[in-house]
Amino acid sequence: PGDATMMVPAVRREIDQAQDILGYETYVKMAGPLRPEQIVHGTDNREELARARHGFELAASGRSVVIVSSGDPGVFAMAAAVLEALDDTDKPEWHGVELVILPGVSAAMAAAAKIGAPLGHDFCIISLSDNLKPWATILDRLRHAAEGDFAMAFYNPISKARPWQLGEALDLLRQYRSPETLVVLGRDVGRPTERLGHTTLGELTIDMVDSRTVVIVGSSLTRAIAKPDGTAWVYTPRWYGTKPA
Amino acid sequence: PGDATMMVPAVRREIDQAQDILGYETYVKMAGPLRPEQIVHGTDNREELARARHGFELAASGRSVVIVSSGDPGVFAMAAAVLEALDDTDKPEWHGVELVILPGVSAAMAAAAKIGAPLGHDFCIISLSDNLKPWATILDRLRHAAEGDFAMAFYNPISKARPWQLGEALDLLRQYRSPETLVVLGRDVGRPTERLGHTTLGELTIDMVDSRTVVIVGSSLTRAIAKPDGTAWVYTPRWYGTKPA
Repeated sequence: PGDATMMVPAVRREIDQAQDILGYETYVKMAGPLRPEQIVHGTDNREELARARHGFELAASGRSVVIVSSGDPGVFAMAAAVLEALDDTDKPEWHGVELVILPGVSAAMAAAAKIGAPLGHDFCIISLSDNLKPWATILDRLRHAAEGDFAMAFYNPISKARPWQLGEALDLLRQYRSPETLVVLGRDVGRPTERLGHTTLGELTIDMVDSRTVVIVGSSLTRAIAKPDGTAWVYTPRWYGTKPA
Repeated sequence: PGDATMMVPAVRREIDQAQDILGYETYVKMAGPLRPEQIVHGTDNREELARARHGFELAASGRSVVIVSSGDPGVFAMAAAVLEALDDTDKPEWHGVELVILPGVSAAMAAAAKIGAPLGHDFCIISLSDNLKPWATILDRLRHAAEGDFAMAFYNPISKARPWQLGEALDLLRQYRSPETLVVLGRDVGRPTERLGHTTLGELTIDMVDSRTVVIVGSSLTRAIAKPDGTAWVYTPRWYGTKPA
């Protein structure tokens, strides 16, 4: 997520061994100190497929390449783009690349741990970006997640290019969940700019959220425990229905 | 998940500093070498709440305590049990304990990374155990996850005490997803006993799954890419609906 103490050692080792590092510049900087002979290929965050293809070109030419993501590359990050690039190509040398995908701590898990365990029971993770999927699909998934009383985490909740989607998503959720439903907002968790807190579905407004925020909406059973410092733990219990004795 | 190279450094540091280590014995062993003066309190895996309370007793008495989980403690593991214990107590000294929850790589994420990116798009994580929630709730959530065409990962899919639930869950899924739907089975991922592979919803039988298996069922768009070694990558693309040009 952007905190060196949260990067698994297997990833540290691969970054240290790589000749070429590809990635969105912000994430490459968070990957920690590199050696002068390591070549950084920084790109825009929206050019995922082009970056994946560039990585295969370099690797197929014999270079040792790392493509960095923040969080877990398998959760709304680079791993799917890398495999889309591989699936699409007719270049046999790309299929000959020795590819390894290493997991990490995704933003929702980092935020959840820091504030308690809001994802401690059944949950969904949904991207609210309609760049690559129809908005109607997103609303349909939100409706099912709400009706199933899942806890949910939203990635890509809002951006300058997508200003109204979050509001519409919250309007839908409010048809199913009470205003007292707990909501966790985690921004840049694990980074120096971290902001982490909780509110309720009734109090939440879209100006409390930006593109770097992960939004976790609790289930009907998600609870808060006041802490002596005035903040609170937020968690979803392991049980559902009747609390066991 | 059980592989030292997948444990975040923040967790390693806390284990190294602790005076008391609590946890299911299998997981304590996977936590790596301990110093002779560190006290291990091994327990049965089903005694989560008792273990959490024991941890608070020790910590409130001034000891430095770590309760270990495998995977991510916030995903069907110890974090929720620890907060349930805290929520239930009327002992002010437990609320005075300096509690920190650290994330990790959960079994679904470890299995997903090793086989590709099956959770690369919207997904749910659901426990199939009806020990602490009604089976009807689980079926309802499965139905919503299926209707919403989420990829899904199942924890606690089967056990000696819960032999029929997985079969019933698969019967339900087969009403919504085609027999060609890709399924990933990951057992002990990251451990020496690892078994990882994929099949289809049509071919899957419950004898292919045991209590240490995480089951990932793809969405309608989850795809496989054949690898030169005869295995395959399994991934869910970032797009949904019409593939972008």
